[in-house]
Amino acid sequence: MLAVFLGDCSNIPQIMDLKEFIRDVPDFPKPGVVFKDISPLLASPDALMFAVRELANRFQRSGANKILGAEARGFIFGAALACEMGLGFVPVRKPGKLPSKTLCVTYDLEYGTDTLCVHEDAVLNGEKVLVIDDVLATGGTIAGILQLMEKSRAEVVGIGFVLELAFLNGREKLGSHQPEAILTY
Amino acid sequence: MLAVFLGDCSNIPQIMDLKEFIRDVPDFPKPGVVFKDISPLLASPDALMFAVRELANRFQRSGANKILGAEARGFIFGAALACEMGLGFVPVRKPGKLPSKTLCVTYDLEYGTDTLCVHEDAVLNGEKVLVIDDVLATGGTIAGILQLMEKSRAEVVGIGFVLELAFLNGREKLGSHQPEAILTY
Repeated sequence: MLAVFLGDCSNIPQIMDLKEFIRDVPDFPKPGVVFKDISPLLASPDALMFAVRELANRFQRSGANKILGAEARGFIFGAALACEMGLGFVPVRKPGKLPSKTLCVTYDLEYGTDTLCVHEDAVLNGEKVLVIDDVLATGGTIAGILQLMEKSRAEVVGIGFVLELAFLNGREKLGSHQPEAILTY
Repeated sequence: MLAVFLGDCSNIPQIMDLKEFIRDVPDFPKPGVVFKDISPLLASPDALMFAVRELANRFQRSGANKILGAEARGFIFGAALACEMGLGFVPVRKPGKLPSKTLCVTYDLEYGTDTLCVHEDAVLNGEKVLVIDDVLATGGTIAGILQLMEKSRAEVVGIGFVLELAFLNGREKLGSHQPEAILTY
């Protein structure tokens, strides 16, 4: 449907090279690692809107009615995309942060484990959800969210990232899912 | 300027009672406290879009070109509003989370202190910014961000919340600023 709205963000360019907005930061989080920093992309209205629209385009036929994002950085594109697509947003959080009854899973990281939770009533049995994060690195967080959604009996109909670090093989942790990424390194 | 866009979120009602989407959770985070949980608001596409549009309306003449939000929950409405208004987004984070050079401030909480940081180059000298969070409680976090913006020599032209817990007197910590809140308890 067509609608009229007031705003500047409809003015974004049709084509952009988002890699111009990704900054290399050497030796973060530890010596020898080059961190791909998305701060310049977030700070640019055009680049931010372009990235959100691009994700929206890729999932417009997904049938999803909710978007999940894990704290903290998953909240940024998760919530922006929820607004852009007219969907609900469900925050996935560390233990002790969500006030009502939660479902939690503990999953393996390279060293040790981590735990993520959602509200028990956040996602309905059979509901279709998108999982959104800024960066796909080793895939641990997203694999944890997939376990959570299995517990919730929700159907994950799409997984999307702004940026994929393909050399870390995160896709391998996502089973049969074929995640979408706007940029790949 | 008028523009045409495709999307469902333009269908949101003209008037909504957002308080219907705020859930009371007793005894969180500690016994005797009733927590105002915004999860139902986030999960509802209509309520989420309504809240974001309402914030956008209040700041449309602010002249801001960036929005700041503090991790984790400040990322949700901060990023969504940045997209809605066509502005850049600057994440405010705990120490050690931002990869490049940072400015940090340590500020007082009811018990102890906390520290917040932004990238040194995130906000320019004299730049106009909005500070957005979901809930104004005691105001400690926002007061910390105001200190950060003083250090950055940015001009805070607006402070906005979805919900204000007025009985906690958070406004008193915000100096001469007059924050906007959609809902007040």
